[in-house]
Amino acid sequence: MEWKHKHLLGIDQLSGEEIKILLEKGNQYRNWLEQSPKKLTRLSGYYLINLFFEASTRTRVSFEMAGKLLGMEVVNFTNELSSLNKGESFRDTVRTLARMKADALVIRHRSSGIPLYISQFLPFHIINAGDGMREHPTQALLDLLTMKRDGIDFTRNTVAIIGDILHSRVARSLSIGLKKLGSQIIFSGPPTLIPKGIEVLEGQVIYPVEEAIRQANVVYLLRIQKERQEAGFFPSTKEYSHFFGLKENLKNTNNGRWKKIMHPGPVNRGLEIDSSLVEKESSLIEEQVSCGLAIRMAVLETLILGG
Amino acid sequence: MEWKHKHLLGIDQLSGEEIKILLEKGNQYRNWLEQSPKKLTRLSGYYLINLFFEASTRTRVSFEMAGKLLGMEVVNFTNELSSLNKGESFRDTVRTLARMKADALVIRHRSSGIPLYISQFLPFHIINAGDGMREHPTQALLDLLTMKRDGIDFTRNTVAIIGDILHSRVARSLSIGLKKLGSQIIFSGPPTLIPKGIEVLEGQVIYPVEEAIRQANVVYLLRIQKERQEAGFFPSTKEYSHFFGLKENLKNTNNGRWKKIMHPGPVNRGLEIDSSLVEKESSLIEEQVSCGLAIRMAVLETLILGG
Amino acid sequence: MEWKHKHLLGIDQLSGEEIKILLEKGNQYRNWLEQSPKKLTRLSGYYLINLFFEASTRTRVSFEMAGKLLGMEVVNFTNELSSLNKGESFRDTVRTLARMKADALVIRHRSSGIPLYISQFLPFHIINAGDGMREHPTQALLDLLTMKRDGIDFTRNTVAIIGDILHSRVARSLSIGLKKLGSQIIFSGPPTLIPKGIEVLEGQVIYPVEEAIRQANVVYLLRIQKERQEAGFFPSTKEYSHFFGLKENLKNTNNGRWKKIMHPGPVNRGLEIDSSLVEKESSLIEEQVSCGLAIRMAVLETLILGG
Repeated sequence: MEWKHKHLLGIDQLSGEEIKILLEKGNQYRNWLEQSPKKLTRLSGYYLINLFFEASTRTRVSFEMAGKLLGMEVVNFTNELSSLNKGESFRDTVRTLARMKADALVIRHRSSGIPLYISQFLPFHIINAGDGMREHPTQALLDLLTMKRDGIDFTRNTVAIIGDILHSRVARSLSIGLKKLGSQIIFSGPPTLIPKGIEVLEGQVIYPVEEAIRQANVVYLLRIQKERQEAGFFPSTKEYSHFFGLKENLKNTNNGRWKKIMHPGPVNRGLEIDSSLVEKESSLIEEQVSCGLAIRMAVLETLILGG
Repeated sequence: MEWKHKHLLGIDQLSGEEIKILLEKGNQYRNWLEQSPKKLTRLSGYYLINLFFEASTRTRVSFEMAGKLLGMEVVNFTNELSSLNKGESFRDTVRTLARMKADALVIRHRSSGIPLYISQFLPFHIINAGDGMREHPTQALLDLLTMKRDGIDFTRNTVAIIGDILHSRVARSLSIGLKKLGSQIIFSGPPTLIPKGIEVLEGQVIYPVEEAIRQANVVYLLRIQKERQEAGFFPSTKEYSHFFGLKENLKNTNNGRWKKIMHPGPVNRGLEIDSSLVEKESSLIEEQVSCGLAIRMAVLETLILGG
Repeated sequence: MEWKHKHLLGIDQLSGEEIKILLEKGNQYRNWLEQSPKKLTRLSGYYLINLFFEASTRTRVSFEMAGKLLGMEVVNFTNELSSLNKGESFRDTVRTLARMKADALVIRHRSSGIPLYISQFLPFHIINAGDGMREHPTQALLDLLTMKRDGIDFTRNTVAIIGDILHSRVARSLSIGLKKLGSQIIFSGPPTLIPKGIEVLEGQVIYPVEEAIRQANVVYLLRIQKERQEAGFFPSTKEYSHFFGLKENLKNTNNGRWKKIMHPGPVNRGLEIDSSLVEKESSLIEEQVSCGLAIRMAVLETLILGG
């Protein structure tokens, strides 16, 4: 099958079939990562630009490594040093970038829609690494790959996404992806952080958190932004961990068995999740990181070389 | 012709013939950039150090890319992390650098003469990427390459350089280069920003800006440092844009036709130039960026491998 | 001889024989550095992560260059951008790193024992680039290599380590290494900066500095942390340079001949050492930098490929 998308701007642009193609290729790279660390040359002679306007070592390094493992040359731009500090408009920064020699450009920006905007000016494959509260497609793909590799059948899969749904591009991308593969989605958490009308993403809102978890086989926790909660928003971090955080005693919600636990990281231990749970056997959190590297290799290869 | 310069410290060290050699090679690389992005191996196994004491993502990335496109390994130093913070003298930093394994070193520093100074200690090819108010030779070379590719005959060429001439190493390098190729130079802008005796660079000072533009076929705008003007210097940013900024109505100065517009970037839209003009057909601003990449490849190759 | 250590956490873990193996290999690389700059491919396809939680361009670049000269891909992490800022525990940062694809990881951290701690979680070769006040093994190895190349016989060698012994991981690693090779160690400096019981490292404490120097053939000066002394600690920087700094007139302490001068850098000229001495013929300070590059190549190769 030929790949028809030049960019990866969101999960919303992909069909279920296309998601499956990326997952299959990602799965192969995940297996390859277990083996000898020799570099591949598939994308040798191709150039990747990392353009991060929000700090994220984790995601930046994952893309940098993914590119280098495929033989690419990688150039990092950081916000701190950018010409924007000298009063240049974002439009002009982008037009300057267009004259660099690159094949793919990974961008993270606090404003929704920026990847789409720049894809109109730049002759590169654009990969959205998170735009505002909109999408973070490679996160969703790595989450799906993690589930797939854990043996989950997407058509008999219910994922409870718990936490700050309101501000989360991760929740948005993941639920779109899950739905396209036939899974059920449940949203839960503090009512103040669950947007009205979230059902538009074809998930159900279920309170309390315990009940949401009871109905799910995967518990997907979102990161709580401490700085927001500590600024006086409800719930406070203490209230959050008390009423909404995942704790040992939640085990009882599934006949004594643990559900699979996922989290996009970085984790606030003791806030959205009890420290003891992070490294439980049922936690897939670390495996998500490995799948992130693999799926980004798959995305780079597919966009640049075709499906 | 054999290349006799070990370093590129300034345009002032090059003859007209030597400038033409670099422009010819830069022209070839500019053509190559249009083609497939495969990496060259001409400088494979050679090392480039980027040493920037002033923030400039634009120039730093241009050199990094130029080096990588030729197969070089590139190491970036940034001021922020440097040992200078621990009280080390600049002299010692340089003497430490001398023991690194490198072939070429690109330096930007706020003090004039630093590239010359370090060329006395370091066994590498030194490339000046801007030293104080003195020179920025690769900027001048890319400007000349942009003109050459636009079909301009240097011997029948008049360039009006407009803006903050006083603080501009770009103006200095460009006018030296233009003169060596036989072009005419006009300086204009706010009188407070035009140094007395600038005619030593063999240009004319012409007021007002409109008249300078009328006599030129290329209008080269310099970046106004907002922070300076906003600190109370004359003219203020409002005065500047009103009295000296390039505007649509300037079209009339040349029988209704637009002159070529150039700018070293980053541009302050609405200050030194009307936003509508930046993307005009007659604007060569983006092409300057591409020529920058190409001329830096030419400079690296010429210094390291010879003419 | 087969190499049995997976990591380089400290000089204390190495036998004299093992130190000699690294010095011999480092010596070969030091010779190689004198030659043509062509890249080696011995570690091509291997990955190096630089993880610096304390700023140190000097050491970071030395490892980056060493890796690249051997053909490695290098990824730099910096503290500034790390997820730690988002409230992630150090343990989780490390567990995330474990899922990156790497072969060796170089770490500098202000807390003693961190390299050992992370070696329990990470599947990579861990190289300690300085942990708190404990060890800095590659610094000690490069110092030993510098002495070896200067023709010093370790069994007839007395090194006076002078300065802030109290806070110095460099002093600790170096004296352990010297002792293992059969050299004598003398500690000297301001009494407030010489810890009680330092003789546990099998060196002697000798006052005053002049007498310590008289008995030594190598004078190894430590860097004085200006910021500490200027904060009111005894001695002040003025007192230090007056009473303890190395000065021209010290020549007299050895029948008019100069001893070899070493310093880990960066140097505070005029504080721990007179400016005129830094570039004296008897100064090995710059050669230490070259030996640093060479010994890091030797360490990377030995850990990854075996002895």
